[in-house]
Amino acid sequence: MAKTFDVLTIGNAIVDILSRTEDDVIVRNGLTKGMMRLIDAAEADRLYEFMGPAVEASGGSSANTAAGVASFGARAAYIGKVATDQFGAIFRHDIRAQGVHFETTPLIGGAPTARCMILITPDGERTMNTFLGACQALSEADIDEATVAAAAITYLEGYLWDPPEAKQAFRKAAAIAHANGNKVAITLSDSFCVDRWRGEFLELMRSRTVDIVFANDSEVKALYETGDLDTAVAALRADCELAAVTLGEDGALAASGSDVAKVPAFPIEVLQDLTGAGDQFAAGFMVGLTRRLSLAESATLGCLAAAEVIQHIGPRPSVSLKDLAAAEGIELGVPA
Amino acid sequence: MAKTFDVLTIGNAIVDILSRTEDDVIVRNGLTKGMMRLIDAAEADRLYEFMGPAVEASGGSSANTAAGVASFGARAAYIGKVATDQFGAIFRHDIRAQGVHFETTPLIGGAPTARCMILITPDGERTMNTFLGACQALSEADIDEATVAAAAITYLEGYLWDPPEAKQAFRKAAAIAHANGNKVAITLSDSFCVDRWRGEFLELMRSRTVDIVFANDSEVKALYETGDLDTAVAALRADCELAAVTLGEDGALAASGSDVAKVPAFPIEVLQDLTGAGDQFAAGFMVGLTRRLSLAESATLGCLAAAEVIQHIGPRPSVSLKDLAAAEGIELGVPA
Repeated sequence: MAKTFDVLTIGNAIVDILSRTEDDVIVRNGLTKGMMRLIDAAEADRLYEFMGPAVEASGGSSANTAAGVASFGARAAYIGKVATDQFGAIFRHDIRAQGVHFETTPLIGGAPTARCMILITPDGERTMNTFLGACQALSEADIDEATVAAAAITYLEGYLWDPPEAKQAFRKAAAIAHANGNKVAITLSDSFCVDRWRGEFLELMRSRTVDIVFANDSEVKALYETGDLDTAVAALRADCELAAVTLGEDGALAASGSDVAKVPAFPIEVLQDLTGAGDQFAAGFMVGLTRRLSLAESATLGCLAAAEVIQHIGPRPSVSLKDLAAAEGIELGVPA
Repeated sequence: MAKTFDVLTIGNAIVDILSRTEDDVIVRNGLTKGMMRLIDAAEADRLYEFMGPAVEASGGSSANTAAGVASFGARAAYIGKVATDQFGAIFRHDIRAQGVHFETTPLIGGAPTARCMILITPDGERTMNTFLGACQALSEADIDEATVAAAAITYLEGYLWDPPEAKQAFRKAAAIAHANGNKVAITLSDSFCVDRWRGEFLELMRSRTVDIVFANDSEVKALYETGDLDTAVAALRADCELAAVTLGEDGALAASGSDVAKVPAFPIEVLQDLTGAGDQFAAGFMVGLTRRLSLAESATLGCLAAAEVIQHIGPRPSVSLKDLAAAEGIELGVPA
């Protein structure tokens, strides 16, 4: 049966608060550059006190991916929990305005909408501090069966392992997807996230609860506790049906069975902000898969989307990725 | 007596919601490109529905000016009314994080913090739709006498004529400033604002309630109801002690008595977003005045600040204007 959605993504619904910062601020506050850490409300207030002037933009890893999928002209849906506050209104507006189907019931009278305070250093690296707030309330009840059944790929973020109820939501979504002949993808999200949940992530892969795994080089190395990328990638290939690994300025590789593709990164003019790079790679790659493009073509679409997002502040495309692909001569075609 | 602040600005405290839009959206919704219009809550909701994905950044004309003054390393203060909501928290954080003194008591339990939905067309022009919200509550009680007395220049936006209580606040501030030997400046804000309040603006100037007047070419022409810029500028010079008129890509002119200076605009690479251009010109110009620079040097500082802000999305400087001035070889010196 033809699917209503190419990609459904599920994750923590977050508004980003982005500010440029010098490296010494990262060091002085005991933060680890490039990583995501979870913070409570008190630490969020403390951190906000010393942050410089900021801008706000809708974020959330897999929500950014849904926005990217829609920007390619593909059909995207999203499930994630916001509150009924001003940040929740921003989040809901932006994802819908991008053309993403988003109908998750907001949390009323509980914690506020999640925010992520992102410190961007002069090298474009981002250090993320997430207050999960309303995301903690995402549960099985939020997984709409019809939406999951209607999506060719259901994409889940590893970050969902942090709010306790969300694991059940993740497993429910994966079961519905597979029962309907759909694919299930996961991103490992962050190497610290991998450290927290290594055993469970491996179980998800080895039990074939997930089919497609997205990771960057530090995440895949963290997963297999090795400093050697080739060793880690070989292990990942054995543990899942399809693996896609991003390698920063070295591009990306994708592997499925004996089929392997390695593609270079797109050249950029000025690196502004790495926020959303992995999210947009996943968007392009999955759009390629749903169009039955080759692994190399799909990875190229991913690199194209990543190159766009790192050249401006904020985690979502600032131009049409569909137009960008067309300008590169990449024909997207129609859904498989 | 030496002053604590170089510039105090008073105005509508607003969070901007900025989105790129095609020209036909402006036309289809009956908006007038380049202008600011006031909208109610229902129209704000309607407009937000059809806006594309947006980013949020603290704004408010004279608050942007205060941020610019602080970015030059000069001492700035701000008075304006937000609510105790998330947008109010953003506004308060950003202006204080820029180094601006801001202590106005927020509105509790009333209208939400003001927002301005800004549609940016491909030519960089911005069309603004303002929901005043909590700004309507700014009153005489918010004018802190000590702060006004301590500021070399008190700068007021013409937009303050829209919320009814704010006029009294404006007049009170001007009286305190003059009683303490300080200067009072006004920006005419917008040609539609001039149309609404022409008589009162002229009275403020002719009664010497204000000393320094900022306007762009369309505002000064609107004020004197003439299509001829030279006629309008001549009339403005007769009506105030010091006039500063911005001319877009033709730069700016400043005139005081028989002293006139005309300076060119700074070259830019790519025009992104005109939001904040006039606000930042005023910041640079007033910093120059407080450093006893010449009219030409002060106008040059204004053009430098305006050129920075139009090359990125958002109404406030994204880099240090002090560093930018130093790179241009402009020595700011110490307060007069």
